[in-house]
Parts: sequence; C-alpha cells; structure tokens
Amino acid sequence: MKTVLIYSGGLDSTVLLYHLLDAGHSVQALSVDYGQRHACELEQAAAICAKLGVPFQRADLSGIRPLLAGSSLTSPDIPVAEGHYTEASMKSTVVPNRNMLLLALATSHALSSGAEEVAYAAHHGDHAIYPDCRPEFADAMATAIGLCDWNSVRLSRPFVDWSKADIARRGAELDVPFETTWSCYKGGKVHCGRCGTCIERREAFDLAEIEDLTPYANDAPDLATLRANHWHLSDHS
Amino acid sequence: MKTVLIYSGGLDSTVLLYHLLDAGHSVQALSVDYGQRHACELEQAAAICAKLGVPFQRADLSGIRPLLAGSSLTSPDIPVAEGHYTEASMKSTVVPNRNMLLLALATSHALSSGAEEVAYAAHHGDHAIYPDCRPEFADAMATAIGLCDWNSVRLSRPFVDWSKADIARRGAELDVPFETTWSCYKGGKVHCGRCGTCIERREAFDLAEIEDLTPYANDAPDLATLRANHWHLSDHS
Repeated sequence: MKTVLIYSGGLDSTVLLYHLLDAGHSVQALSVDYGQRHACELEQAAAICAKLGVPFQRADLSGIRPLLAGSSLTSPDIPVAEGHYTEASMKSTVVPNRNMLLLALATSHALSSGAEEVAYAAHHGDHAIYPDCRPEFADAMATAIGLCDWNSVRLSRPFVDWSKADIARRGAELDVPFETTWSCYKGGKVHCGRCGTCIERREAFDLAEIEDLTPYANDAPDLATLRANHWHLSDHS
Repeated sequence: MKTVLIYSGGLDSTVLLYHLLDAGHSVQALSVDYGQRHACELEQAAAICAKLGVPFQRADLSGIRPLLAGSSLTSPDIPVAEGHYTEASMKSTVVPNRNMLLLALATSHALSSGAEEVAYAAHHGDHAIYPDCRPEFADAMATAIGLCDWNSVRLSRPFVDWSKADIARRGAELDVPFETTWSCYKGGKVHCGRCGTCIERREAFDLAEIEDLTPYANDAPDLATLRANHWHLSDHS
C-alpha cells in the first residue's frame, strides 16, 4: 500500500509514520508550511524522514498566510495561550480550516504520485477544541476524497479511537525516538513545557508511564504543580 | 449575506459575481494562483473586481506546484489538448483535486473574515470530465464545510443545475461585459478558439444566441467547421 502521510514531525504523526512502516506501507511524508510560528517542527520532520529513508515533501503554503488570519499559530501579534487544551483560551490556536487544507493537499499529492491512501494521526483526544478533528468532519472528508478523482483515494485514521497515551505506548513498542519529535506551539529552542500541546505531550508520557526525555524550558512547572493548579498557569505568564 | 466567491475571471464565475451582487450579497472574491499556465485569467479577475469595487484577494499556491504534477494546466511540458471537452484527451487538463483545494482555501478565508457563505460556479455541464465537479463530491464538501469550524459556513452553488448557455443568458440579462472574461487554457494573448474551454465558451454563446465578441486567434476554425468535424481538431494541431 502506497500511503501519503500528513506529517508534522510531532509525537502523534511520528508514531504513525513508524506504525505504517511497521505494517509494510510504502510511505511518502508530506509536511505543510502554512506560516506557523513553530516551523521548526518541519526541520524535525525532514530529519526524521532522512534517517528512515522515507521520501519527504514540504509544501509551501506560506503564500496564503493572509487567509489564515486570526490564529495565534500564524499571527505573530497574537500570543500563544498557556495552560491545558480544555481551556477556552486555547481556541486562539485554531487555524481556520487547517485540516481540510492539509487533507486537500495530501490528496492532490496522492493522486499525482499514484498513492492509494492518505493517512493522518487524528486521535480521540483532539476534538474537544478543534472542530475539524470531529469524526463527522473526517467522515465527510473521507467521502469527498473518495469522489474527487476517477482514481479513488482512501482516507485512513488508524489512531482515531486512541488516546495520546495509547499513541505514546505504541511509539515505545516501535522504539520511536520521542526526543527528536517536536510538539511545542511556541517554536522556541526547547519545548516551553506549558502551552497546550506541551502539557498534552507531558501528560501522555506520564499516563503511559514512559520516561519523558524531552528537554523543557528551565522555568517549566512540573506536572504535579500543573495538576494542583488545575492546569491554569496565568500566574506564570 | 457576506459571501466568499471562488473567482477565476472566467465566464461562469463572472456571471456568478454579477448574479450575487444583483441579489444583494456582500461579495469578497478569491482567486487562486496554483501555477496554471493561463494565469492571465487572474489579471482579468482583478480588473473586473476593481471596476465593480469588489474586494479581491489573490492566494498564492504556486509553492505547491510539485504536488499538482501531471496536468497540462500546471506542467509546461504537457501540451493542452485541443478539441471538445467530451474527448478523452481533455483529461490531461484535470488538476488533481483542484476543487477541494479551492473550496478549502475559500472556507479558510470565509472563517477568518466572518463570511457565512462560500459560492462557486459549478454548472451542469462540468461533470463529464471533471470528477470533482460531480454533485456527490460537492455534497460531501458542503457537509465538511459545515462542520470544519464552530462558526458554520454554507456552500452555495446557484448554477449547479444550469447549462453554460443558461449562464450566458443570465449574464446577458445582467449586462456582464463578456469580452473582459478569460476562458482559454492556453494563456496566449487572445483566446485560441480551439481548446476545450474555448469551444465550450463559443458553444454556450451560440446556443444562447448571444453575439460572441471575444477576439479569437486568426487560425481558429469556425463553429460550423468544428461541428462538421465532430469537434476533432487533430488535423489542425
């Protein structure tokens, strides 16, 4: 099976890359530069693919940045909120319609390169904040992707019913080098340890009882402190 | 109603622009540069919007041209086929998954600018060659567009049951300056008069009994000759 993987270089999609290779797929990784402030994730993605000998394509969408206004991930003047994903403030990290754009690009790539499948690492924990992570959205996109060409492309979401801790456990089984993956939305030199995606990452390792070897910023509170504060970090900001 | 119109500067979408303005919509036009050889259509689009005072945005997707390989519209080494759209050779003009990309971009633009609707000029005659013009595809996309954000966006296709001749008739009613619209896929100085989209344009004016003021290339055969040859033009190529 020839599969185009939407690949961010983060924890979830890196485990999915290893998971697909383990299942014998011929994977082509596609990373999208949509003007995100944490574009360092794309460098990690390229490096991991190079190590594995996986073809890697970087699609440059930075020319449409004006269309994606209003998100803290693409607008330098909007700060990235700190705290847990379940907080309302985290909505500022929503990039309008990002997943439809990523799926559309990956499907174009699949069609022009003769792949039968597009895979991405949507998981069960995603849809509290991100409307385009809802299963109903993905179902409609799967239908559209199956109809957009005479050559049918299948949309695959192997982790859709998994938690992020489940993904971390699967990654540990597959010896994924977690410390080379990038999650932090802030895009600094090391993970900040306190934005939504850093907290989610730390929580996943903790729940999966996997040692977290990620270097975090010196001022990152420990998980126990975060939990005691119900994940609110406004006093640290 | 605030509406984002996917606007190519061609006949169909220009009539739709006038049609929406006539119905009182507040229109924002979005043109997409996906590396097409007939990018001159985008100049026409900008000029028509400037004349009407309609906000115009040009999205630059040329950075993803490698993902759209295999189409004569984006690959300079693949010639644009001549003849009628119903010919198999016309399939070389299919840009993989173009409509999903355009709809995804327009939806992002609608969400970030507070528009309630995305409109495009799909019509009844489109779907013989282009799989992503099929109503089932558009229905799935309409569902996905309605779910991709907490603010719901509606997909509008006012011409979906119309022929191109119907669109030309409506354009005549609205005094659309047809001669300023661009259709030809070859992207020369004047319309070639013999590629699929030129023939479709000429046929629409003929069926609608509207005088066609488009300047065509000197060597363009007349419609009667094209019809007598069953639209096959290989002897002219």
